[in-house]
Amino acid sequence: MVQPNVHSAIKRTEAASIKGLMFDVFGTVVDWRGSIIEEGRLLGKSKNLEVQWDGFADAWRAGYAPSMQRVRVGELQWSNLDEIHRMLLDKLLLDFEITGLNESEKDYLNRVWHRLKPWPDAVSGITRLRERFIVTTLSNGNVALLTNMAKNAHLPWDCILSSELVKHYKPDPEVYRMAADLLSLKPNQLMMVAAHKIDLHAAGALGFKTAFVSRPLEFGPHGKPDLTPDSSFDFSAKDLNDLADQLEL
Amino acid sequence: MVQPNVHSAIKRTEAASIKGLMFDVFGTVVDWRGSIIEEGRLLGKSKNLEVQWDGFADAWRAGYAPSMQRVRVGELQWSNLDEIHRMLLDKLLLDFEITGLNESEKDYLNRVWHRLKPWPDAVSGITRLRERFIVTTLSNGNVALLTNMAKNAHLPWDCILSSELVKHYKPDPEVYRMAADLLSLKPNQLMMVAAHKIDLHAAGALGFKTAFVSRPLEFGPHGKPDLTPDSSFDFSAKDLNDLADQLEL
Repeated sequence: MVQPNVHSAIKRTEAASIKGLMFDVFGTVVDWRGSIIEEGRLLGKSKNLEVQWDGFADAWRAGYAPSMQRVRVGELQWSNLDEIHRMLLDKLLLDFEITGLNESEKDYLNRVWHRLKPWPDAVSGITRLRERFIVTTLSNGNVALLTNMAKNAHLPWDCILSSELVKHYKPDPEVYRMAADLLSLKPNQLMMVAAHKIDLHAAGALGFKTAFVSRPLEFGPHGKPDLTPDSSFDFSAKDLNDLADQLEL
Repeated sequence: MVQPNVHSAIKRTEAASIKGLMFDVFGTVVDWRGSIIEEGRLLGKSKNLEVQWDGFADAWRAGYAPSMQRVRVGELQWSNLDEIHRMLLDKLLLDFEITGLNESEKDYLNRVWHRLKPWPDAVSGITRLRERFIVTTLSNGNVALLTNMAKNAHLPWDCILSSELVKHYKPDPEVYRMAADLLSLKPNQLMMVAAHKIDLHAAGALGFKTAFVSRPLEFGPHGKPDLTPDSSFDFSAKDLNDLADQLEL
């Protein structure tokens, strides 16, 4: 068995070469589900709508992966996430029988993704991690969405990097390579931080370091995220403050 | 003659539609010349070099526009600003008879552009402007350079936008259009802030608002920057705090 102090020394060596942290955003940094439910309920009250907003949030998010896949295989031309969210929203408004919204209200609702709230540890954790590392988004959200979200939620990013910059969605390798290229760093000088194993496995396969962050409530109280340990990741953390602790910040 | 209060009302109306400010960086936000001279002198002392560092800084910067022009006409394949600076540096080291630097020291010297110091008003001015506007770089510097500079100099950008993202250098229209596209804003919702008229004229021609910032010392005590009034700009400011005053922040 590895002694705790030997383990620490190994971790310290691994961390020493890291210059930047690339963060997945939806689910890892912000609570998309809780934020959409909260705004939905306020909208429902003001418009007198009877809507199950948890189901609405889940259905909106459920359209995300298949839409990106349509872009990936060329069935849908490049569309940024605001555009994808809007296509999905137009269908959801019908499915959930949400009526009486004018165009500007629909646009405002679509931009709820620009106003998502961070998990309680996110701002403090990123602020600590930023003391030693370049901290950037590496998200499928578009640049405007990520910039507005950061401003609204006080997320102290050094840089906004988005899949939009290469017109490829994660986990396509082009996205991770773009980040290394634009930051002039080698993959092993960058660590992907995410709550989703698919994102970390894709980054790891290209030589990036990986940190898993556990977000048991991403999909709500009845959600079943995959939180099983995976020893292929360089770090596994309970939240972003725990990651900062492990990186000795 | 326009009454001061009428003038203020017009300015207020103009400013009301603006959502974001795009900043030129070299010369407008940071003092490239003073910063290079200062680092050069320290290097000279440690290496026992007799170099006129003001002439060195001027010569380095003088190679910038012709190199971008070579990229623009296709004579040189796309090269980011770090690469252009390094090509120029290698020649300057010969011209100024600077010897005894190993590869890592040359690379460090080349990255002096990542460590440029802001003008005294820059951090406080941008911090004020950021209260109401999205503040982003829109610079010919590459993303890594701008990100490292912001971190080093505590420039509180909301977003890092660079000519590198479209592989075109300002004043090519592709650069300004990219910013509007990525921020999901219309040109008249964005204002270019720069100390150089060519940059503002290019942005203005595309429908962006424009703010001139006077930087009389950009080219040193004997430099002759064009500071003559130009009524085609929406704002003309003495520095970034003056711009914040005019925008009533």
